[in-house]
Amino acid sequence: MKLSCDSLDLSDALTQVGKALPLKKVMPILNGIKLKAEGDTLTLTATDLELSIEKKIKADIFTEGETVILGKYFTEYVRKIDKEDVIIDTSGEKTLKLTYGENNGYIQTMEADEYPAFKNVNDENSFYIVKKELKNLIEKIIFCTASEDNRPTLKGCSIEISDNKIIGVASDGYRLAYCKKEIEYGGADIKIIVPARSMSEISKLLDDSDENVKVSIEKNYFMVDLENTKIVTRLIEGEYINYNKIIPSDFTTTVFVDKKALDTAIDRASLATRTEKKSVVKLEIREKRMSISAESEISGINEIVNIDLLGHDLNIGFNARYLSDSLRAISDDFVKLCFTTSTAPGVIVPTEKKEDEYLYLILPVRIIN
Amino acid sequence: MKLSCDSLDLSDALTQVGKALPLKKVMPILNGIKLKAEGDTLTLTATDLELSIEKKIKADIFTEGETVILGKYFTEYVRKIDKEDVIIDTSGEKTLKLTYGENNGYIQTMEADEYPAFKNVNDENSFYIVKKELKNLIEKIIFCTASEDNRPTLKGCSIEISDNKIIGVASDGYRLAYCKKEIEYGGADIKIIVPARSMSEISKLLDDSDENVKVSIEKNYFMVDLENTKIVTRLIEGEYINYNKIIPSDFTTTVFVDKKALDTAIDRASLATRTEKKSVVKLEIREKRMSISAESEISGINEIVNIDLLGHDLNIGFNARYLSDSLRAISDDFVKLCFTTSTAPGVIVPTEKKEDEYLYLILPVRIIN
Repeated sequence: MKLSCDSLDLSDALTQVGKALPLKKVMPILNGIKLKAEGDTLTLTATDLELSIEKKIKADIFTEGETVILGKYFTEYVRKIDKEDVIIDTSGEKTLKLTYGENNGYIQTMEADEYPAFKNVNDENSFYIVKKELKNLIEKIIFCTASEDNRPTLKGCSIEISDNKIIGVASDGYRLAYCKKEIEYGGADIKIIVPARSMSEISKLLDDSDENVKVSIEKNYFMVDLENTKIVTRLIEGEYINYNKIIPSDFTTTVFVDKKALDTAIDRASLATRTEKKSVVKLEIREKRMSISAESEISGINEIVNIDLLGHDLNIGFNARYLSDSLRAISDDFVKLCFTTSTAPGVIVPTEKKEDEYLYLILPVRIIN
Repeated sequence: MKLSCDSLDLSDALTQVGKALPLKKVMPILNGIKLKAEGDTLTLTATDLELSIEKKIKADIFTEGETVILGKYFTEYVRKIDKEDVIIDTSGEKTLKLTYGENNGYIQTMEADEYPAFKNVNDENSFYIVKKELKNLIEKIIFCTASEDNRPTLKGCSIEISDNKIIGVASDGYRLAYCKKEIEYGGADIKIIVPARSMSEISKLLDDSDENVKVSIEKNYFMVDLENTKIVTRLIEGEYINYNKIIPSDFTTTVFVDKKALDTAIDRASLATRTEKKSVVKLEIREKRMSISAESEISGINEIVNIDLLGHDLNIGFNARYLSDSLRAISDDFVKLCFTTSTAPGVIVPTEKKEDEYLYLILPVRIIN
């Protein structure tokens, strides 16, 4: 294999496919990125056997061929070579030679035969979605996924596709995020669980453009197909929690509040309990004003925010981080907090957008009144 | 004690004196910052018994008094209150109450009597130096200090003051930085060793202005007196290495080179050995060009930079990080590398400035030719 390509194109491609490199130690071959030179294209792939990314870039191919090169090292090396064409030559034994200007380097290679084949998902069940919409759907829910291993299905995002809509849900058992987007889809209903890590990497590869991406789903696999880049992930098996039963719709206390003022107040008040396992804040909801307070052995903080209240007064406690995370994920300036009792889940929704587009549900923490 | 002051002034002052809070666990009282309200001034002090910082800010004092408050927690709290006056009130028992707008908080306090007194250094031996010059002197040498405990004097910077000059030197035993500045000083010659941490915090409190700061030295103490801020540090006892004997002045190989090109080449080449304990690069100095190369079991990189050579060809090896650190501390675009043999120390100096103003000396690493 011998080829010449732009170092910036190569560096970008390596960085992108590198997101699929294993985070933990696994088979040595998976630490590699596979390079394949064919026609006028250099194809790069990486996989940790769960997530796979493939990227094609233009290259002048002198000799076709393929090889596997230590992913992180090669990426870092190429990233340091900017604004120059690089020549890649694997005619040496188990060695890739890189030449740029007057300089050169060599790196040991691995056997391309030993590298797992890239899984292409067929497009029997597929649809198109605008890039920024898919990115937004993921960003709105991803932070609510569980990180512990004891409930494997909660380590992924539930994706439901039916009759012109896609619904994404994430939950760690204490809180839940729900986001719905309209798409054009007339196929069979689909319910899958996509690993959180794959979702996160997919969102990073998407930009805020209005271009379409193609999403294809096959038994056990989910593929997002961007121009020249394909991301395939295995799915998580199992039954996701029945979130439709969990999300309440009738409330007796509804609070309208400035998001930034509320966030600042929670941020300050929660300082008082920040050294504790979970930083709990107590909300005291009254006509026109809500106090947000927290107390520890050595300190106490009490903040006041102005609100509009519909319904009853209420005292309720929450993990401060769950409230903050949700507020930060909401793009509106005002939010609506909806409650029934001090032990029932609270729901946070944006006020400007269609209410059913996205929401956050948070279980309260028992507080001493 | 009861007073009102600007939250931004208070936050800045807490952040500044907080640099003297202990890094390791020590006596609980030292985790505190002392507040003293007197006249129209709030004085804040912190110390780890080696480094002490005192800062004065304006305040409306209603009742004079003093207290000690958990430093990091109080700083973080006040930092979150911006653009508001705060009222500090310690009339509660062992409690400081903070009020800002409609909000308030309380924090446990400690006994001011138990806090160590701030050490004021008398000005028998003192001089003035321009802020940016002192900052520059520290920045030019500080990164060469040793971090290990086995040679305590090398954990500080040597400061020598005599007849209208100040010389700062730092070394970790493998490399050395030397920087000389002119000052007006007619007193007795002084040779001291200032702890690296104190030097670093002093440089952070200095800005790039042309204002003067007063430096005072007393047996065992070094004080920098800025407007409203005083920094006092204990000195390190012992005899510093005799650097005048170590720095060579005659060279047989002198290389003039573009600093950025050299730095880039070292950065790239050293990638090949970056996983090793020290990343060694080999310089092959020839007429018009120098090759910089590094090699490990799995990779090798060879870079070429254009140079002007005065004297003999030479092959010599260095720890890449030592070369890079020195290059980054030099403000000129071109540098001069001076050598004699492959086993004698190399010296790096800027080309534009007066040669004796600052220099870096680096011990070479044995390489196989």
